[in-house]
Amino acid sequence: MLNRLAQSVATLQGGSPFLGGKALERRRGRPFRARLGANECLFGVSSAVRRAWQQALDEVGHYNDPTHHELRAHIAASWGVGMEHVAVAEGIDSLLALLIHAFVEPGDALVSSRGAYPTFDYLCVGHGARLLQQPYAPDWTNDLGGLARLAQAERAKLLFLANPDNPTGSFADAPTLQAFLAALPADCLLLLDEAYAEFAPAAQCLASSVLAPNLVRLRTFSKAYGLAGARVGYLVGPAELVERLDRIRLHFGVAKMSQEIALAAHGDSGFLEQVVAATHEANRHYAELARGCGLAALPSHANFVSIDFGHARRAAFVERWLEQRDVFVRRPPIAPLDRLIRVTAGPPAMREVFASALAEAVEAWDEEAVRSAESGPCHVP
Amino acid sequence: MLNRLAQSVATLQGGSPFLGGKALERRRGRPFRARLGANECLFGVSSAVRRAWQQALDEVGHYNDPTHHELRAHIAASWGVGMEHVAVAEGIDSLLALLIHAFVEPGDALVSSRGAYPTFDYLCVGHGARLLQQPYAPDWTNDLGGLARLAQAERAKLLFLANPDNPTGSFADAPTLQAFLAALPADCLLLLDEAYAEFAPAAQCLASSVLAPNLVRLRTFSKAYGLAGARVGYLVGPAELVERLDRIRLHFGVAKMSQEIALAAHGDSGFLEQVVAATHEANRHYAELARGCGLAALPSHANFVSIDFGHARRAAFVERWLEQRDVFVRRPPIAPLDRLIRVTAGPPAMREVFASALAEAVEAWDEEAVRSAESGPCHVP
Repeated sequence: MLNRLAQSVATLQGGSPFLGGKALERRRGRPFRARLGANECLFGVSSAVRRAWQQALDEVGHYNDPTHHELRAHIAASWGVGMEHVAVAEGIDSLLALLIHAFVEPGDALVSSRGAYPTFDYLCVGHGARLLQQPYAPDWTNDLGGLARLAQAERAKLLFLANPDNPTGSFADAPTLQAFLAALPADCLLLLDEAYAEFAPAAQCLASSVLAPNLVRLRTFSKAYGLAGARVGYLVGPAELVERLDRIRLHFGVAKMSQEIALAAHGDSGFLEQVVAATHEANRHYAELARGCGLAALPSHANFVSIDFGHARRAAFVERWLEQRDVFVRRPPIAPLDRLIRVTAGPPAMREVFASALAEAVEAWDEEAVRSAESGPCHVP
Repeated sequence: MLNRLAQSVATLQGGSPFLGGKALERRRGRPFRARLGANECLFGVSSAVRRAWQQALDEVGHYNDPTHHELRAHIAASWGVGMEHVAVAEGIDSLLALLIHAFVEPGDALVSSRGAYPTFDYLCVGHGARLLQQPYAPDWTNDLGGLARLAQAERAKLLFLANPDNPTGSFADAPTLQAFLAALPADCLLLLDEAYAEFAPAAQCLASSVLAPNLVRLRTFSKAYGLAGARVGYLVGPAELVERLDRIRLHFGVAKMSQEIALAAHGDSGFLEQVVAATHEANRHYAELARGCGLAALPSHANFVSIDFGHARRAAFVERWLEQRDVFVRRPPIAPLDRLIRVTAGPPAMREVFASALAEAVEAWDEEAVRSAESGPCHVP
């Protein structure tokens, strides 16, 4: 049978974009003390979600609403747009897959920053697209000029950009984004991943009224709303496009209780504010910790801080050291981002676990570096 | 932008395979008293699921395990196969979409029975496949000979067959299925939808040890396990195929709590047995009710009974009558199945609501038929 796979699938290499925290724990044979590697919300659960959770149980035997009517209506109202502009699916990943399915034929060009979102890359190649990557600028921001030129030169159908960016945490304000959109070819659809938008300065963000024929804005309940386990994301974009996606999307993908707790979370602005405030505090703490170790922390507008270890070998050493100390962080796999370690905003106790392991790791590296200069390659204890 | 849609998507007509119960209720402006149209489990929630539900809440902020490790291990053990034969996704629909993505290039031939599963048809055309449909046999069973010949003649890549069948409820036993598989071209993959397998006579079912290079067996937690709202399904098939699907599947599609309650449900055989027994009782009751109205009920091996109203106009009349009486049932949209009405197994109180509405509807039709023979076309009150 495998000789009848679609050609673009038959020629794919294996490999998963992310190794989950659970999978890591299984491989290690023990749990993490500080799970700071997946940019999850580590500040508890909204009380509105708790209430919706209890109510949802008795109806778990019923199918979800395939139209996501209530959730879309609620989202649309908060954005000040009609609900025909809103589509809901099992997280941003699912929406990206849907958009790629809608547009891509084998060989089509898609563009993103190199090392930005492994899942986007994974979905591109899984649909037979040509993935073109623009390196980040030297200051770790997205090279918007380079991205626009690449899209132009390659007649790209889709361009993926995260703002705030992951894994750098950088942020482009509204005028910058508007200029970028204007610089893109009119027939290149900008997939603007705003998963971390709630953590960015509201006054500088693209207004919710900003819609354009070649703009799709992607949001999630996995970050500031604290519902990564629920798998709910949405997009706001042109109504005509939403209607076309409706003809190919999976209607019964989002769990019924996920719809219900997402709706509850969306209405709980108090919890959202607490999470955002706690996140900003955590990010400040991480920046201090980095400085204390003589390291630079990239300015972050998301729920994590990336610390620059200067080169990949040092970052890899620290990453492994942290894992040995039961601290889960994430090091981007692609150069030059692989010299960064990304740490998710967490509560004080987790930050303390991270802080002491980091200080140890940096000290150990320095000792190793001295020893290895004398006698050979360094190793992780 | 829409002029850059993939060709197979650009040329698609609109239309959703199913109108959900919720959407119907919104359109009607009032809820149903008896929701018997979606083949959901109407016999409550497993106590093991209730316990898992409470435990899952505190971790809703964490991502799901993208490998579905525990659930797959549990399923594999119960099937007596290695877990490399098992893939999990957001319901059978999602697995069908994944298989179509893996195999189909525009123009490829896929085969199913005409009117079998609207979502399979929807996914086929959404991926640019050529959908070839074999009519059901006159006795409402799948025409297995015809399906095999069609697959042969058209060099079909995939063939969809539900067993027990939906919407007819018919069932092919193990020897029949084995013979069918042998009659298929060796390079045609049989997608065997066993969503209703738990309701069929175990001794006659295909053994769990039956695996073949061109066989994929699809199961769900939406029916006998009572978790339609959780959106979890799985397949058991060749390990090499599961590994290939792993390269293109959505890793973060199934909600974390869905994984956990599916695991709990899979371990609660007592609840499963209760549901199956209650379902058989409900099916017997529906068959009696049909006989009492002078109608034939198709023998059912699933969690519903399809009643044959002889012709589509009569079935449509009854369907609308039932809806007016707040009873949600399903009438297949495609001839000749459109003369059937499918009623989901439910508890006694819901069956009584159905019973009195059905008796009224049949009487009203007879009166209408007399009147219309005298004066013109019939109408629904």
